[in-house]
Parts: sequence; structure tokens; C-alpha cells
Amino acid sequence: MSGNTFGKLFTVTTFGESHGPALGAIVDGCPPGLELSEVDLQQDLDRRRPGTSRHTTQRREPDQVRILSGVFEGVTTGTPIGLLIENTDQRSKDYSQIKDRFRPSHADYTYHHKYGVRDYRGGGRSSARETAMRVAAGAIAKKYLATQGIQVRGYMSQLGPIDIDFKSWEAVDDNAFFCPDPQKVPELEAFMDQLRRDQDSVGARITVVAEGVPVGLGEPIFDRLDAELAHGLMSINAVKGVEIGDGFAAVTQRGSEHRDELTPEGFTSNHAGGVLGGISSGQPLIAHLALKPTSSITIPGRSIDVHGNAVEVVTKGRHDPCVGIRATPIAEAMMALTLMDHLLRHRAQNADVQVSTPRLR
Amino acid sequence: MSGNTFGKLFTVTTFGESHGPALGAIVDGCPPGLELSEVDLQQDLDRRRPGTSRHTTQRREPDQVRILSGVFEGVTTGTPIGLLIENTDQRSKDYSQIKDRFRPSHADYTYHHKYGVRDYRGGGRSSARETAMRVAAGAIAKKYLATQGIQVRGYMSQLGPIDIDFKSWEAVDDNAFFCPDPQKVPELEAFMDQLRRDQDSVGARITVVAEGVPVGLGEPIFDRLDAELAHGLMSINAVKGVEIGDGFAAVTQRGSEHRDELTPEGFTSNHAGGVLGGISSGQPLIAHLALKPTSSITIPGRSIDVHGNAVEVVTKGRHDPCVGIRATPIAEAMMALTLMDHLLRHRAQNADVQVSTPRLR
Amino acid sequence: MSGNTFGKLFTVTTFGESHGPALGAIVDGCPPGLELSEVDLQQDLDRRRPGTSRHTTQRREPDQVRILSGVFEGVTTGTPIGLLIENTDQRSKDYSQIKDRFRPSHADYTYHHKYGVRDYRGGGRSSARETAMRVAAGAIAKKYLATQGIQVRGYMSQLGPIDIDFKSWEAVDDNAFFCPDPQKVPELEAFMDQLRRDQDSVGARITVVAEGVPVGLGEPIFDRLDAELAHGLMSINAVKGVEIGDGFAAVTQRGSEHRDELTPEGFTSNHAGGVLGGISSGQPLIAHLALKPTSSITIPGRSIDVHGNAVEVVTKGRHDPCVGIRATPIAEAMMALTLMDHLLRHRAQNADVQVSTPRLR
Amino acid sequence: MSGNTFGKLFTVTTFGESHGPALGAIVDGCPPGLELSEVDLQQDLDRRRPGTSRHTTQRREPDQVRILSGVFEGVTTGTPIGLLIENTDQRSKDYSQIKDRFRPSHADYTYHHKYGVRDYRGGGRSSARETAMRVAAGAIAKKYLATQGIQVRGYMSQLGPIDIDFKSWEAVDDNAFFCPDPQKVPELEAFMDQLRRDQDSVGARITVVAEGVPVGLGEPIFDRLDAELAHGLMSINAVKGVEIGDGFAAVTQRGSEHRDELTPEGFTSNHAGGVLGGISSGQPLIAHLALKPTSSITIPGRSIDVHGNAVEVVTKGRHDPCVGIRATPIAEAMMALTLMDHLLRHRAQNADVQVSTPRLR
Repeated sequence: MSGNTFGKLFTVTTFGESHGPALGAIVDGCPPGLELSEVDLQQDLDRRRPGTSRHTTQRREPDQVRILSGVFEGVTTGTPIGLLIENTDQRSKDYSQIKDRFRPSHADYTYHHKYGVRDYRGGGRSSARETAMRVAAGAIAKKYLATQGIQVRGYMSQLGPIDIDFKSWEAVDDNAFFCPDPQKVPELEAFMDQLRRDQDSVGARITVVAEGVPVGLGEPIFDRLDAELAHGLMSINAVKGVEIGDGFAAVTQRGSEHRDELTPEGFTSNHAGGVLGGISSGQPLIAHLALKPTSSITIPGRSIDVHGNAVEVVTKGRHDPCVGIRATPIAEAMMALTLMDHLLRHRAQNADVQVSTPRLR
Repeated sequence: MSGNTFGKLFTVTTFGESHGPALGAIVDGCPPGLELSEVDLQQDLDRRRPGTSRHTTQRREPDQVRILSGVFEGVTTGTPIGLLIENTDQRSKDYSQIKDRFRPSHADYTYHHKYGVRDYRGGGRSSARETAMRVAAGAIAKKYLATQGIQVRGYMSQLGPIDIDFKSWEAVDDNAFFCPDPQKVPELEAFMDQLRRDQDSVGARITVVAEGVPVGLGEPIFDRLDAELAHGLMSINAVKGVEIGDGFAAVTQRGSEHRDELTPEGFTSNHAGGVLGGISSGQPLIAHLALKPTSSITIPGRSIDVHGNAVEVVTKGRHDPCVGIRATPIAEAMMALTLMDHLLRHRAQNADVQVSTPRLR
Repeated sequence: MSGNTFGKLFTVTTFGESHGPALGAIVDGCPPGLELSEVDLQQDLDRRRPGTSRHTTQRREPDQVRILSGVFEGVTTGTPIGLLIENTDQRSKDYSQIKDRFRPSHADYTYHHKYGVRDYRGGGRSSARETAMRVAAGAIAKKYLATQGIQVRGYMSQLGPIDIDFKSWEAVDDNAFFCPDPQKVPELEAFMDQLRRDQDSVGARITVVAEGVPVGLGEPIFDRLDAELAHGLMSINAVKGVEIGDGFAAVTQRGSEHRDELTPEGFTSNHAGGVLGGISSGQPLIAHLALKPTSSITIPGRSIDVHGNAVEVVTKGRHDPCVGIRATPIAEAMMALTLMDHLLRHRAQNADVQVSTPRLR
Repeated sequence: MSGNTFGKLFTVTTFGESHGPALGAIVDGCPPGLELSEVDLQQDLDRRRPGTSRHTTQRREPDQVRILSGVFEGVTTGTPIGLLIENTDQRSKDYSQIKDRFRPSHADYTYHHKYGVRDYRGGGRSSARETAMRVAAGAIAKKYLATQGIQVRGYMSQLGPIDIDFKSWEAVDDNAFFCPDPQKVPELEAFMDQLRRDQDSVGARITVVAEGVPVGLGEPIFDRLDAELAHGLMSINAVKGVEIGDGFAAVTQRGSEHRDELTPEGFTSNHAGGVLGGISSGQPLIAHLALKPTSSITIPGRSIDVHGNAVEVVTKGRHDPCVGIRATPIAEAMMALTLMDHLLRHRAQNADVQVSTPRLR
């Protein structure tokens, strides 16, 4: 209840501090009989892993995950799946600079007031390192969803001022940015190189899409599919905005333009982003998220210490100049976890339902 | 679990169909000793009520709420508060036009596939009429929050293409649009009059703000204050996007610009919108939401019937040409419910915490 | 979260004070397509209703339930079912005797300390009148379970010192005690008549049985079927003990005697009461519960008032001399709600499971 | 939701199979600032550990627990506490005897039907080995409760046919049985020695007591303190019955005898076992539980295999002839976890309550 669990039927509970001995998670509610091994999880962990290009932090985290339970002879048993990643890159370093002061735009100040005590090493629990466990758990959801014909993928749709059009899924995995347009990659690289020289950071926009979603997932009223997805995406570090389908563009649209008409051949458009009344329509589920620029920059900033005195803060260390670059696998994980949870919830209540009406795309 | 409950400690569970006998809610977890009467709830219900200007639906719904339990001799007792609104305007009308066909961009198609059966009268459970109960429950949260110095208010910040700057809270209650700029009201009225003549609808953008929020509310990782707020706001009918603080504008910002610096006199800015690491910072909590244009328009649209045949749909009846106009009290309610829940959650775990560090604004 | 909801997927949330305007409940998660009307609920409400024999309280509560939502054209729609019973027998009476004093063995003292304020009229929320809503909700669960071949029934197995053997289900509904042995009824009547003359009360033991339960219901570890059943039964007013199968008799048994052996023709016994490792075995699910004697007796008792002064309390009014007499339908309701919840939970996770092993009885 | 989490605010989620690589738990919601180290947990783990006398299984499980997160510089930080015990005694042995057959009175048959697949090594997830994590988590709850003046302790009150009177808490830790009467220990030893010679097993009765509980804990209606405690205790392997206070003895009591009268000097008795209306009364909280005899005995028993054929089963290996002997620390843990959860829940809703009425004992 203190907020480290996601989902209601397919639940993921995580623990771990950035510089503690380990990160871990318990994935509860996975259907039995799913083929699963550590390799399935490692793939997505490696996509999120830092240090794979010059545009992300140069920290070395092998992020080697172990499955400690819930899998027997290569298949899930229906019992909880324990996951563990030991922290290996725990440099013993001097934290006296940040121990008693609050880095601007970080959670230092709020953790301090909420708990009265905090693990200040590398941000402790508030570090984005925690998202490694989301990615590991999301990989389990992805694997099960794939057996149901559902595929969750994401890409970067904007880096700072640079808009990126979707060209192909193949392109996404061919560069360090999850950029779906190969022709834009040189521009992104040049932008990031200049940003590093400026010792500054920048925001990004990520798009995630689920294809093959059946019609009917989502519990209307409060636990709508889009509301829970917004919850999941907004819970990712640095995210400041979430859109479903046309999102904020819908503000200026007229009803005659926005509404997705239905024909026997299918929907004529997908302004809704795959959700109507909180329930999946069978069209692709589409969400966009805005990530803020990280505040861990070396340009000095004003702050206070725990006694209320003015101090100057310079965040040294190995930080991502654009946290959005590594966010795509995390966003995919949160969409997969949301869908997985709603797939199980749907089965619980609606196992008897049979409808002869054809399903549209 | 099928999604009609919001909150974990201060929980609101609702029921009711648009044209059924009644709407109701159970508010569980309210602290005892709060002075409360039906008048407190009716004020916000009247703000949301349709038919109060020519710019909203002309349906007559007195929305008279009764408190059935949980209040004794004028104060809450800590037991669940039962709320009831009897539906009075249940015109007996002919539904044969919509019974077997799906209105485009409505939940008809998705409810049909999810449940196999649906109350088609006026949208049934998927009608925005359900939000009356959110507003009633939100009024209880608002009243308690006010005793803690927290005030939740909202306004319309954009109507279709018309941007609206914030001028004053006083202005908001002086017009039918919740518009904070009195000089903009004539433009809004002219726009809406033309829209009605076009028989079309349009989207809107609403902003909600909570002032007086203490530092420390919100459970980091999945149940962040901003994530739960996004959940609550996205669960409102027609909402397609949610932003916290600068939201999508943060995509193009640099870290040196976005970060809110701290000085002994307070924060120097509030790009974060009052949340750092998922925990309230003590600054005003700010969120924006995008509402799509309603699809209930009289311009004919293509659709299919339950057998998959092509049909043409014209949505007659008394509908809002801009559902955003009445959305402000609903958005306030969801923010108040989110804050109330997190206030109680914070107290549960952190009752012992004492911090000597001064609190900033 | 303040405890007025039972179940995780098939949830029942109740409200209402003994002498308030109404009792109500929201049943969320009911599968769509179930034929349901108020008559289905009224049958069990009438079985629980007081005033039907001289051995229960002579209060008149017609307990007429209304379904306010979730049912359309005679079948459930999958949306929440709102239930309401208006309180009609609200005698205006003088509560000055109990307003400031605590009746021994009642919840007066504990509510006072927990909430600081309480509705003292007839026990307020702590009155067993609240159980009417459990019975109404339980009737919905029973009706759905019946469509799955599951039947939940109960009977009185002990009244004070009088042991009652099970003879037949037919007998249970033929007397005011839910006594399954018609030959015992005169003895029970004589005992109760003497008890009334003594102005005293007595305890009872109830047995509930579910037949037709499929093998596989129950989530091992914390949410075992038997653990959740114990939770539900112990939450009934006046219950002080719960047993599954042989219960406390198992303490003196040897393993060679207690274990239920399996043969191709079925289990050879049912000491376990239908649960192994927290999961239903396919045998009848059997539970026993102990109800304490009510403390509402006219023999004077010592107590204190809200100022801590010694006072003498005599509980006048219309009270049951044995609350166990009307407890059978309530116990059935809690078992039905528990099974219903676990049936849905099982479907969520294990929809894919196929086993060729024959099922035993 | 698949049942591996206990508690709502102070939550414990566990994973791990008997013969898998490790057992683990995440304890979420612990208040920050509590001094905590692995030594605190190890003490109770060692009390539960097998192989410490000839009367328990001779398996060697050092059960060395590691704290992986949530504790920094010796105090809890409010973030989730990850716990891990690596399994060291994983003998590679031949499971062909039990792989395809169901041990009578075990969970083999029900797991097989529920999940379609099971880890048959040593019972897998259904093994009582899982309770090690409950004990570790319970030790955290105990430590916090102690800072609030609450002490949770238990003892064996019956072994098979031998009743045991409570003599002193000091005696409990002086023998292998948690027997509070030192004079009874030789009788218990003789009984157990004979039982081993008989190759049979026997049941037991355990009593747990919490002293120093404040008045007011527990959420009335469904989440009563006694109902949640019954849930927790019944979820322990082999438990078949739970009593609060007088329990089943209340069936034959009269109201004039059962009711606990109040005087300015305190309650005159504690038949209720410390709970009135589901809320703690401030008196000692008392519960009793019945444990069945283990079915893991070497006397051959009839069973079937996965194809439905009759087979004979002899459970070899190192098993406890009375699982009740090691159950006391587990029962204490479940009571401590229940109280901890309710302490936090009470704080959430009732932080404002002030009562001048004196508290009784």
C-alpha cells in the first residue's frame, strides 16, 4: 500500500535502492504453463541498460537478472515469480556533497520531508535504476501477451525540438535512440553531442503502441484501460504528461472530425487511440508520454541544505543527458503490465460472454 | 475490482445508470468528526448540473443528493457514507434507433463486446451522468481538505481554438464556462453559438490547482501522487490527455530551464507542478486535462449494427456541444479525492516523522 | 479500506446504521447475463428477518430490498448492482439511558475510543442489522453459483448445551431454528422458553456446507479458500470461532486417522472439510462457527459511562435471546461470497489450464 | 492478487519454493526510522528453524536472512524491505516416487488441478518452508509494535490429547515445545517418542497473546481485527480452526456469564479475548488455533496417480511428526502482522480523534 505494487491481478511489487545490495521484484498472478527463462527478461533489460552508446550514462550495470521461483522445468507454475538483480557497480564514493543538501528538481527534498531519513547514495529509491525491475516484469507480461497475439512496442517520437515521424519498427532497434526514422539519426546524434558540450539536458516524447489487443479489455468508470495506462506511464521517473490517441490535439478538434466511424470493413480512423469508454476497441492502443529533461546537470544550481541554508549544487557523476533515450523499454513494460492485468481482470468477470457481432479493426 | 472504486484508504464506490432508478455511492474511510450536511455536497452538484445555461444540455436533472449513513448529529462518524440521487427525468422514449446499433466514438461497441448485454438507454453506465457521484464524493474530500488548509479549484484554460489565460478565481464562478478571464467570455459565447448552428461539438482544456498541499504526500514508485492523479483525471469521460506542471512543454525544455531551484525564501519556479519524485513538494499542485469533442452530434455518421451491417447514426437528444464546459467540478473532485486518499496514506506510515528542515513554498 | 468491503473481484461494499434512513450495498464484479430480480434476494432476506417466531426479536423490519442498478431487462449487465433497504421501523425513542454509557460486551466502548463519536441508536453501525445487506448480496452470489452447480446451505448444529445431528436438508426450513433434526425441535423450543423466563441469552453453533464446488478454487499462501472463509465467517457479529472440516477435533487426531485417502472411486473421507493446501478439493466445503450469547439481556450488568463513572446497565428493547438462531442465512451468505470471489479469481489466472486427471468426489 | 500478499497497509508479499534457489519477501509500508538489522529477524527464524531437537524434522536449514533494501545506516527508510533466504539444503534426490502421484491430505492433488503443473520437489510452494518468510516479516512488525508497547507471544496449549496450562512466559523458551508449563515437558517428550515409534503424527493447539494493544484497532464490519486475525492464522499450513477469546466454549455459555463487565478499575473478565465489535478493547488479544496432524507419515496410504490409477503412498524423508511444535513463532508472526496493519490503518483515518474517557484494561 505504500505504493510499490502495480496491478491488481497480475501484480508487480518491487524493492531496491540505487546503491543497495540488490534490486528485486515479485510478479504474482502469472498464468501457469508459460515457457519462461531468464533470457526472455534479459533481452529487454539489455535494451534499457545504460552505457551502450555515448548518448547515455557511462555507468556499467550488467543488470543480470535471476529467476528465483515460480518457474519449474522451463514453465511458469502459477506461483509468484521472484526476480533479483545484484548491484555490482557500487563505487565507494564520497557523498558528503549531497548528503545534507537537496539537488534541485530531484526527490531529495520531498523524501526528506516525507520520511525524515533517506538513502542519499545515487538517489536511493528515487533513482531511475528502479525501473530495471519494471522492465524485467514487463518482459514476462510481454511474453504472455504474445501468446495471445498482442504485441507491445515503442519508439521515440520527439527529442527536444526535433520531431520524429514513424517510418518503420525495423528502424527502431537499429540506433541508440529507439528512433523509427533512420534518416533522422544523424540529426539526433549531432543534437546530443552539442547538448553534452553545453553540459545541459533535454526532454523527449515517447510513443507506445499495442497491436492485436482484443475488444473488451478495461473496467469502465475508475479502472478504465486508458486511466490505468496513464497511471502506469505517469509513474515512470521524469514523465510529466500522458496522451491517449490524439491527446491534447483533441482540444481543438470538432466532433465530426474526431469521431472514429465504423464500417463493416472496420474503423475508418483511430483518433481515440484504441479505447472507447475506457474499454479497448480492438484497434491499436496508442499512448504518448512526455519526459522532462533530467536535472542532473553540471551547470550550478541554487538550492538549500537540510538546515535551510542557501547552497550551490553541481550534480557530478555519470548521468543521462536525456533520460528519454532509455525510456522506451520502460514505457513498453508499463503498457504490457497494464494490458496483462486487464486481460486477467476481463477473464474473471466475463468468462461466459459470447457475442456474435463481428469484431472490427 | 471491476473498477467502480477509486482510492485505497478514502474509497469511493459508485453505481447507477443514466436512465435507471438512481445513482449512488459509498464513501468509506472519511475521518470522524467532520461537520457535514447535504448542503455541502449540493453546492458542487449544482455547479456541474446541466441546463444552467444555453451552452450545455437542456436536460433537467435536479440531482438532489441524500446522505443515508455515516453522519450523525451533523458530523461524520467514521462509518461509510451512503449517497443517493434518484433519477427523476426518466422520459419514456423510443430507443429502437440505438438499441441495436453503435453510436460512433461512444462506448456502445465496446460494452457490447465486453459484456454481451448493455443498458442502451442514454448510454447506461457509460453516460457522463455517473460523474455526479464523483462530484458529490469529491465535495466531502474538499470539505475535509479545507480543514487542513488545502483548497482545490479549477478553470477552463482552452475552449477549442481559444486559449484562456488565468486572471482570477473570482471570475471563474461568474460565467457558465468556468472561464477565469471575464473579457474572454463574449468570445466563448459567440463560438458556442456558432458551434450549435453547425450542429457540431468541440474539445476543451481544463486546469486544476490545489493550494496549501503539505510537502510529503504521495507514495513513490507506482502510487506517485502525479500518477494517481493522472489515473483519476483520465478516468473522467472524454479525457484524452493529462499533464502535470509543464507537461508536454517539458519535451523541448532544457534541464537548466526546467529545474525549479530552491532558495531559503522558497522555490524560484514551479515547472514541476508541485510534485518531485511522485511526492508533493509543498508548491501548488497543477494539472491540465484535454477533453475530446463529444460524439453526440446531429451530423450523420457511419456505423454498424449488432449484426455487422452498415447503418447511419444521428445522435438526437439533449447533448452538450462541449462536454468540457461542465468538466471543471468533476476534475476538481478527482483531484480532491486523490489528495484525500494520499493524505490518509501518508498519515498511516509516517505518523512518527519529525523534520526540523523548514518547508518551502 | 476502512473495512466495509468484502471480496477482491466480486466485491460487496455496505453502508447503513441500525436507525438511520437506509441500509445499502454495492455489489461489483457480477458476471453479466445472470437472470436476477428482487425476488431472488427477498427469499433469503425473509429467512433472516426477525419477528417470524417467538424465539427471535419482535422488531418488525419488512426488509424490502430494491435493486437500483446493474440489472436491465431482467439480467445483470456486468455493471455494479446497487441495493437499498429503507429503514421503516425507526421508533422515536428515548436514548438518554445509553447515550453516555457503554453496554457491556457491546461495541459501544470500542467505537467511542476509535472514532470519538458514535451513533448510539440501536448500536448504529455495529448493530447486526447490517447483516441484512450481506444476505442480499449473498443471494446474488448463490444464484450465480447455482448456475455452476454449486449449492450453499447451512443449519444449526448446537444450541447452548443441545447438540443437533444432521438429519436432512428438508427439515432445516421447517422450523424457526434451522434445525436439521425435526425430533429435536420441541427440546429447542422448551429450552428457549425457559431462557426467556430467565431473561438470559445463550450461544449457538452453525454449520455451513457448499456442495458441487469444483477442485481448484483458492489462492494458496495467504488467500487460501479456508482462510478467506474464516475471515468472512469471523466478521459476522458475535462469532468467536471458526472451524474447517474437523477443526479443533484435529488436535487429538493422528495423521493415520485424519488424512483423507484417495481411491479411483473418490476420497474415502472428508476430515479436511473440502480444502487441501488452501485450495478446494472438490469435496463438500464444510465450516462450523461459534456464536456467543448476546449481551443484550435484562439482567443488570456493571459498566461505566463516558466519564469513567460506574453505572448499571439493563438492556431493554426487543433483542434476540440467541443471535445464532437467525445466523444461518448470514453464514451461508459469507460462504457464498467467498466462493464467488474465488471462482472469479481462479478464472482470471487459470483460464488456460487443462488437466486430464479425473476429478474425485 | 493470486494470494501471496498479506495486509493492506503493512504488506508482506512472499515467494519461493521448498527446493528452489531461494525464498524471499517484500515488506512494504514499514514506518521510517525504526532501528532494524538482520539480527532482529534471525532470532525468530531460529525459533522456527527445524532440527533443533529430536522432536522436529532433522532437515538442516540455516535460514540465514539478508536484508536487501529499505534499511540505511541501521534504520528503516520507509521504502520496501527486501528479504532473501537462499536455500542451501537442496539435496538432489529421486522424486520419481511422488512426481506423478498425489500424497494423501497434501496439496498435490489440488495444485495439480488448479495449475496443471506443479513443482513436486518437497511440496514446492505448498511446503511449510514458506512460513520462514512470514516469521522474518513478522519480526519486523514485532519490533515496531514493541516501540508502541505491544508485545506478541505464543505457546503450545495442547499436544494431541495432552492439555497444557499456562504457567509462565519464561518457561516457554526453555523447551523444544514452546510449553509454558515446565512440569509437562517430560510427558510431552515421552508422548512424542512413542509417536515416532508408531511412525505416526498428531495435532496440536497453539495460543497467541498480544499485550499492550491500544483500544481502537480494527475496522468494523468485514475487516474486523478478529476476522483479519482469523484470516492470518487460518492461512498457516495445517491450521483447521481459530478461536478468539472463549471461542467455541461460548456456545454453551449464557449472556450473563460471557459478558465482560466494565468497572472504573477495568474489565472484570476477558471472555471476548480483547475484541468487541471487531475493534480491540485494550485488553489482551487472545487467539487459539488448531493444527492438524501432518500427513507425511511412513504408514502406507491409499492414493491415485495423475492418470487416476490406484497407488500406495509412503511419505519418506525428514518430516515433523507434529507440525504444531514449530508453529508458535509462525502464529506470533501472523498476529504481529495483523496488528501492525491495523495500527497503520487506524492512524490513517483516526489521526484527529481525541477522547477524554479513561482507557480500561
